[in-house]
Parts: sequence; structure tokens; C-alpha cells
Amino acid sequence: MHLHPEQDRNLIDHNEEHIKSSDFIKDIVIGMSDGLTVPFALAAGLSGAVDSASLVVTAGVAEIAAGSTAMGLGGYLAGRAEIDHYDSEQKREYYEVEHLKEKEVAETEEIFASMGLSASTVKAAVQELSLDKDKWVNFMMKYELDLETPDPKRARNSALTIGLSYIAGGIIPLSPYFFVDHPADGLLYSAVVTLISLFVFGYFKSKLTGQPLFKGALKVTAIGAIAAAAAYGIAKLFGG
Amino acid sequence: MHLHPEQDRNLIDHNEEHIKSSDFIKDIVIGMSDGLTVPFALAAGLSGAVDSASLVVTAGVAEIAAGSTAMGLGGYLAGRAEIDHYDSEQKREYYEVEHLKEKEVAETEEIFASMGLSASTVKAAVQELSLDKDKWVNFMMKYELDLETPDPKRARNSALTIGLSYIAGGIIPLSPYFFVDHPADGLLYSAVVTLISLFVFGYFKSKLTGQPLFKGALKVTAIGAIAAAAAYGIAKLFGG
Repeated sequence: MHLHPEQDRNLIDHNEEHIKSSDFIKDIVIGMSDGLTVPFALAAGLSGAVDSASLVVTAGVAEIAAGSTAMGLGGYLAGRAEIDHYDSEQKREYYEVEHLKEKEVAETEEIFASMGLSASTVKAAVQELSLDKDKWVNFMMKYELDLETPDPKRARNSALTIGLSYIAGGIIPLSPYFFVDHPADGLLYSAVVTLISLFVFGYFKSKLTGQPLFKGALKVTAIGAIAAAAAYGIAKLFGG
Repeated sequence: MHLHPEQDRNLIDHNEEHIKSSDFIKDIVIGMSDGLTVPFALAAGLSGAVDSASLVVTAGVAEIAAGSTAMGLGGYLAGRAEIDHYDSEQKREYYEVEHLKEKEVAETEEIFASMGLSASTVKAAVQELSLDKDKWVNFMMKYELDLETPDPKRARNSALTIGLSYIAGGIIPLSPYFFVDHPADGLLYSAVVTLISLFVFGYFKSKLTGQPLFKGALKVTAIGAIAAAAAYGIAKLFGG
């Protein structure tokens, strides 16, 4: 879960490059993916170890609060850090094209040469870039440092959407436990509802990332099932 | 948490570009970051709502199992998907340079033009690339699609390191509850141990990502504290 968001986003990015304003949908996918999986697995784990469904609910809502806050805030601060990082690197590049021009020329030559261009074309290209400092710095930001201009609003909106989607996803596996007395009953309904949700969700996610639809949906479902089984086993060991 | 890993990795990447084999350290940072935060917050949340420390331990280990499995497996499958995606895009590019050469030439021209080069240099560059299909496809993979050759081993090793670091991180906030009877005592020791760990950990993380050390350490600590407070409040509401 926590690892793939940005990888997913890269995959989605490429396939969705023609569709505008899909950032919102991406963030929903990222948040809901985690929200469906971890609270489901935690609740399943506790179901084998405690005998009160309301206890599972308490632990589940605590996890949703913990996970969505950490995810939202963590993402927001990482986004802010990215902006600071971009700004400081940009300042450094401006300094370098100003004061360390020879070094910067050599770096630019290296980038163009690595593209597979001839020595004379490399020379011409570097010559042209070095005439315009803004152009040159933009080039270095993108092609030396692989940094895109970050959008300040995006950090906040994205964190909020992801956090709320985590909550929305987490309510699904948890909701059956509200209506039963014994956790085993809750687990049964929760597993049915959540695995179906994960499959449907995995189907749409695979569509967004351009993966095979059925296989992709099965993978997402399998992660949830395996995480739940692992949590069940370990909780049984400690508390059962 | 779940959102920033890849952002963090990008930040770390840039600052650490001279240091080899730091992938391992990055993955430890990513896994431990989540492992310290979420199990800590969950345990803190439950401490206000249940009266048995062993129940907190059971829920905590279930969360660690759920989180590390989902994180490890999710990351592994995302890594595999990235490889499939790369391969299929590469095939598509080979097809395009072969059968849709005019379209491909236009795309390549556009990329060079967007770098700020003159029409004649753009023409020369495209001409040179189009003579060598492998070079040309490599160029398009990197500069049109922004895809780097993925390392197949990396997906597996990375998932394993991150999963294990999540477990190692999660044991820290949970361990005090093993030694007490009442969750409130566990919470006190857990908060002390975890907030200190988060601060130390945030300090090293800031070093890796090139952020201000003290400020960065405080931020990481604050996310943990806020997530714990949110979980405590919501668990109290539902179960207290």
C-alpha cells in the first residue's frame, strides 16, 4: 500500500495524459486503495482474537483516524518539502549558470551527448541554451535534476482528497461490525463486502493504470485477502 | 505516510545521487516512517478506549501484520506492474518508429523544440536520432514518456526491506504495552519512546532529503503526535 501510490500515479499519469483534471480521481484511487485494505485486515485480525464486535469497531475507527491523518499530513508535508526543494535547486542552478558557467556547459553537453547526438549538434544546442539564462535553468531543472514545477495548491488538495478517500474506503470493511454482536459474523460480511469492493475497485484502478483488467483486479483483491490472513494469524497467536 | 514514500524517494534520490547502494537505506527510512507512526497512533487510540494492555498489543501486532504485508506486497506488485508497463511501452515505441515514422519525427521535434533549441538544431538532432532505432526508442522512453529502465530485482528487495522496516518501526511504540497491565501506563512510555524515536528518525530522514534538520525532525514528530491524538479522540468517542 504505502509504497505504490507514487508508482501508481506515474502509471496513471502516462495513460491519462490526455485527460485533464484526473488528479482528483488518482487521489481517490490512492486513498481508497489503502483505506479498503488495512482497516479490513486489522478488523479481520482482531475478529479471531477478541469476542466483542464493538471492540473491533473501536480499533477500526482508531486505525482509520491514524491512517488518514498520517497519510494526509505526511503527504501534505512531503508536498511542501518538494516545493522548498524545487526552489532551492532552482536558486542553485541560477547561481551555477552565472558563476560556474564552464562546469554548467560541461554538464549540459553531457546531457545532450547521452541523448545520442553528434558532437557538433551537442555544441550547437549548448550554445543556444547558454544564451538565455531562464531557458537554460529550466532545461537543467527538468533534464539534469528531473524536477517538474510543483503546484502549491496540489499538495493541500491532494492530501485532503487522499485522507478523505482513506476514510471512505475504511468505512466499507468496518460497517458490518456495527450490526453484529459477534466478531465472527462481522468478519464474514466484511470479507464478502470488502473483497467485492476490492475487486471492483481494482478493476477501475487497472483501467486507469493500463494494466490487464481482470488480472489487475485479482491482484488488488489478493493483497487485501493476504494482509487479512496475516493479521488474523498473528493476532490469534498473540491474543487468541 | 502512504503518500510520501515516492516523493521522499525522489528527494533522497537527488541529494544522494553520488552515494551508491543507498537504495537500501531509503527503503528502511520509508518503511520505518510508517511503522513508527501508524501502530503508535492506533495503540494510543485504543489506550483511551479499552482497559487491557494485552488487547492493545493484539490490535497492534494485527496492524503491523496488516500494514507490512499490504505495504510489501502492494509495493512488489506495483514494481512488477511498472516493469510490464515499461516493456509494453517500449514495444509500442519500436512499432511507432518503424511504422509511424512521420508522427514520431513530429513528436521528437516537439521535445527538442520545448528544450529551447533553434529550428535548425532541432532538425539536425532529430535527423541524427532517426538513424539509429535503439537510440531513438531509448530517447523516447526517457524524454517523451519519462520512464527509466526498471530493475526487476529492485521490486522484490525493496518490498522486503520496506516490509521488515515497517515491522521494526512498529515494535518500538508497541513494546511498552508488553510490560504493563493498564494501557494508560503503556501509552505514557510508548509516547515517550516513540516521540524520541520519531525525532531521531526525522533528523536522519531530513539529512537524507536535504531538509532543515531540526525543522524536519519536528515535522515527523508532529505527524506522529497528531495522528495519535486523532486516533485517541475518535476511539474514545466510539468505544470509551
